[in-house]
Formats: sequence, structure tokens, C-alpha cells
Amino acid sequence: MNPVTLAIDAMGGDRGAIVVVPAALKLLAKYNDTRLILVGDETIVQRELQRAGGKVSDRLLIHHASQSVAMDESPTQALRSKKDSSMRVALNLVKAGEAAACVSAGNTGALMATAYFVLKTLPGIDRPAIVSLVPTRTGNGAHMLDLGANVDSTPQHLLQFAVMAAVLASAVHGIARPRVSLLNIGHEDIKGNELVRETARLLTSSGLVNYIGFVEADQIYAGTTDVIVCDGFVGNIALKASEGVAHLIKKIMREEFERNLLTRLAAVVCLPVLRRVGRRINPDHYNGATLIGLRGVVIKSHGGANADAFLAALERARLQAAKNITAQISQEVSRLLNQTEAGSA
Amino acid sequence: MNPVTLAIDAMGGDRGAIVVVPAALKLLAKYNDTRLILVGDETIVQRELQRAGGKVSDRLLIHHASQSVAMDESPTQALRSKKDSSMRVALNLVKAGEAAACVSAGNTGALMATAYFVLKTLPGIDRPAIVSLVPTRTGNGAHMLDLGANVDSTPQHLLQFAVMAAVLASAVHGIARPRVSLLNIGHEDIKGNELVRETARLLTSSGLVNYIGFVEADQIYAGTTDVIVCDGFVGNIALKASEGVAHLIKKIMREEFERNLLTRLAAVVCLPVLRRVGRRINPDHYNGATLIGLRGVVIKSHGGANADAFLAALERARLQAAKNITAQISQEVSRLLNQTEAGSA
Repeated sequence: MNPVTLAIDAMGGDRGAIVVVPAALKLLAKYNDTRLILVGDETIVQRELQRAGGKVSDRLLIHHASQSVAMDESPTQALRSKKDSSMRVALNLVKAGEAAACVSAGNTGALMATAYFVLKTLPGIDRPAIVSLVPTRTGNGAHMLDLGANVDSTPQHLLQFAVMAAVLASAVHGIARPRVSLLNIGHEDIKGNELVRETARLLTSSGLVNYIGFVEADQIYAGTTDVIVCDGFVGNIALKASEGVAHLIKKIMREEFERNLLTRLAAVVCLPVLRRVGRRINPDHYNGATLIGLRGVVIKSHGGANADAFLAALERARLQAAKNITAQISQEVSRLLNQTEAGSA
Repeated sequence: MNPVTLAIDAMGGDRGAIVVVPAALKLLAKYNDTRLILVGDETIVQRELQRAGGKVSDRLLIHHASQSVAMDESPTQALRSKKDSSMRVALNLVKAGEAAACVSAGNTGALMATAYFVLKTLPGIDRPAIVSLVPTRTGNGAHMLDLGANVDSTPQHLLQFAVMAAVLASAVHGIARPRVSLLNIGHEDIKGNELVRETARLLTSSGLVNYIGFVEADQIYAGTTDVIVCDGFVGNIALKASEGVAHLIKKIMREEFERNLLTRLAAVVCLPVLRRVGRRINPDHYNGATLIGLRGVVIKSHGGANADAFLAALERARLQAAKNITAQISQEVSRLLNQTEAGSA
């Protein structure tokens, strides 16, 4: 892959540089074709760099930023009063072409608003969306969007999301024509709300993606589709509900294994198995959602990510930058523009 | 509790009377204050009754119905051409006052359409909704609606759902003022789509329920609320996504425990624990969704339910009939009618 430079918001997330810096060093050790620019308070970043046994080099630069965006800060507030925030400066580096991608574990709303303001959307894209890889039984995972950037989306928006996610899935999984589905409450054409039915008509008539029809939410993790498209409200609910159930099952299992001495012994015996199960459904592997539709690669890490989870987000950014996802998407979207007015709406 | 009579659609579900009849006999053995009317093809019901070692008595009647609704039959088709279906006749018995509740494992769309046509909605209720008890970490469970009866709901519909579910939760859990929440993608007032924000204003101003605010989908199973209100599209997606994750985790655990001889031995050791975990998250216990808002108790069992799961649905019907849920709801809804025009819309 082409060598890439990533701009990293070193102050973002619940623990900022304490998590970001060690993850950055792990990435550099893993890929010698990658350069990193750590953006944030120079003294703090330096301190964490020393603590983690790393140092500035031609592959690891520090770019000072005097401000940082709080996790609970309002997007408009951040946009107005944090012009020198680590988040904003990292995005500026992407806009200036000094970095191919930006990674931040900061405040989602602020990142979305600032990225939208700094980078703007690609021609033909009305709104950026949040797309993430979700685990599937087959192991490859599926790309799902929108996960909360847009509520009350229109069919044209969902069509744009589908086109963009198909390009991403194709590049990431190396499949020519990813299977694209619409999330709905039934398979039949008559099922669902006006939004999905109209979007289904659009997807079919446009012929831009390999649309395979409606998928019900219990099939999200079945591996029967590569791309799952839905409104941001619905996508966010589906993903959070899934997290809720995983937590419920985890808590019940812990309770039952801690019930008494016998169950505790049983736990010891099957710990290796349970560990492997845990690794396979470990959300850390899937950390790093893409803010898709912008003029540059922007990856949002979970705010509570640990170093390994943040590393996964960095690897996602590196892959998408190296594969030049942005150019691929804008090329595909131009085909959309040529055949429909949706993009210019 | 008052003695109750339940009308059971003996032909509904994937396996019909083969599942329904044994479940009916279990219920009769468990509660001697309950009468059952098995509605369906008399010869088939008789045959299953004999096979299960039961017989007709003053507490177990058979009411012949010459037709049955197919699981894949369209609601309109069923409504038009199946006037003597086991489903329809069971609902007629409720309308005629011969039974206090109807239970069916048949085609959801057909049951909803037929129940709506036969029983009609309560004064002040525009549309019936599907409400179900979902498991929570605290163990009590929470009532969630709408789970798919209505898409593109209005704020007034969601207000009606909230009032009805609060009555149900109060009666089932014996709590005076159940905590009612709105499913949303964030806690803050500014979060979410127009529907939830407007519904939040309605719930607050009406003061009819103990509205505690927005709840995110990862909190559905946390036990922090007693009633969760959402549009039917969103509710169905949340529930199905949850099922999907549970299946994913189950499959991965099976794979890892079957990996080799050692893991198989580990499985044997912790089988009792895993069994107990399974029982606690067993969807069978939660089988039986209520079609709420009708002039009578109607319970929909999962089509693939086994006898134990169908028994759970029968017990739900018995409880709601004995507590006279319909009268309680219509009384509460009349308060809603008095203060808003929503009901007469």
C-alpha cells in the first residue's frame, strides 16, 4: 500500500493522550509505511511519549494545538470557540493535504460538525453519515450506516449512503459487488414505512449498487449482506440495543459463574474458551467508525477506547487512506450525480 | 383472582394444535380457576387432546371452526375469505363476552387486522399497538411498545401507547406509577427526531404518566425504566437486532466449546451453569405479546413457540383477563380524552 500520514487528535476521548500515544507507537511498530502527526498540547503529548518509551522522529511528529474539545461540549460551542482545538487542527491537516486521514476519540457531535465545516461533503453528497463494521456469524462483518449522524433522512440520502458504503465494503473486503440491503421490519415489498419503500424503489431503479432487498434486524449479524442501510435514528437504536443485550448476557453469565464454589471452579475450567468467545465478539476489534461522505478520511474512535481499541481505529484510517477511499467514493458518486438530481438537491 | 375463560386459536402457529393442546392442558392443571375454549377443527383438536391424555370437560371446551389462517396469508385475504377461521371465531367469542381473552400463535398481520375488525379499538385509541415484556438486568422486565403494529406513528399515538402500557405495567408488576421513557438516540432534549421530541413535550404536558425522559437503546435491558415507548418500526428493529446478537453470541459459544476435546470437556463441566444462564435469557418466558388498545384482551404468541412458550402466553392472557386490563385501560384513556383531542383525531 502507499505510505500514508495520519493526523491524530491526541487529546480526544475519555483519557486523551494516555491512550492515544501508546496506540500510536503500536501502529508505527506494526507498519513502517505509516507516518503519524500527534495533534495536541505539546507538553502533555511529550510527557506521554516519554512515559510510553517513544520519541519524535521523521515518522512521528507532534503538532501543537492550544485547545481541546470537552466530551460534553456542544458542537456549535466547539465550532465557534475552539478554532485551535486538537480535533480541528487535525482536520485542518487533512484539508491542507498534510495528512490523508484524521482519527479522533473526541465528542462525536463536535467531530461531525467540525469535520463537516472544515472538509465539506463530496460533490453529490448532501450529508455525511456514520458507517461502522459490525460483526457477523460468517466473520467478515458488514458495513452498516447511518448510525446516528442523520435523523429524518430522505430516500435520496439513503441512496447516497448505499453508494458510499458499497465502495467502502468493496475496498475493505475486496469484493467486486457488495450485497446492499435496506433495514426493514419485514421482507415483503409492502412492509415498512414510506422511507424504506421509496428508498427501495430508488435503489432498484438507479442500478448503482448490488441491491438485494430488505433485511430484518435479526439478520444484521447473519452475514447474508455486506452493506446495511438505514436512517441514523434507526441505525443508532439497532446498534445500541445490540450492545444492551450483549451486556445483559455478560452480566447474567458472570452472576451464574460466581454463584458458588462449584460454579467458580467451572468458570476456571472454561475460562480459556470464554476468553476466546470474548475476543471474537470484542467490540474493540470493531472500534473506529467512518464519517463517510467528506472530502477526506475521518475516523471516530469510541471515547472510552483503550490503546488496543484505538489502535484498531488507527488501522482502519490507515487502510482507508492507503486505498484512497475518498477518491473512489467521489468517482462513484459522480455516476450517481450524472443519473439523478438527488445529489444536487 | 376472578375465574376467567380464554378462547384459544388451536390451529394457529407453525405446528397448531400439536403445540396448543398440550399447553392448554398444562394451564388447566396449574390454575383451577381457569376455563379454556379450544377453537379449531374439532377432529384435529380431539385427536391432539387424546394424544395428550386430556378430554373435554366443563373447564375445557372445543368450539369448531371450519377454516384456519395460513401463516403467510395476507391480512386482507384472511379478513375477506376466512370468516370461520379459528382465529376469527376465537375473537368473536371475546366480542360476545363468552371469553375474556383470545390467544393465538397465528399470522401476526392477520391477527392484528382481524382483532381490529372484530373487537375495534377502545374509545380514545386510534390504533392498537403490540406491547411485550422484555428481560432486564434487575429481573422484573420492562414493557416495550410499539413492536411493529404501526409505522410512521404520530406523537398522539405514542402518548396513547404510553398511557396504555403504564396501566399494563402497573397491573402486572403491582407498581403504582411505572417509570415511562421514550426510546431515543441520546438523553439531551435536543437529541432525536421530530417524533420523539414532540412526544416528549406531549408526555410532559399531559402529566398522565410518570414520564422520566429519554432512554437510549443500550438501556432497554438495564431495568432503569418500566415502560419504553417508540414507533413500531423502531421498536421492531430494536427487538430483532437484540435477537440477532443473542443468536450470534450463542453460535460463537457453541463453536468455541466444540473446538476440540478439551473445550468439549470444559463444556460438560459448566453445562449446569450455561443451562441456568440459558433459562434466564430464555425468550420462551417472555412469549406472548399483547395487542393493546382493543376492546378485549388479545395475546399473540410467537408462531414457532413450543408448548412451554405457548403456556407462558396463556398465563399472560389469564393474568390480564383476571385483572380486567381492558377496563382499567379504558378508564385511564378516558382521562386522556378529557384533556386532549388526540383520541378523537
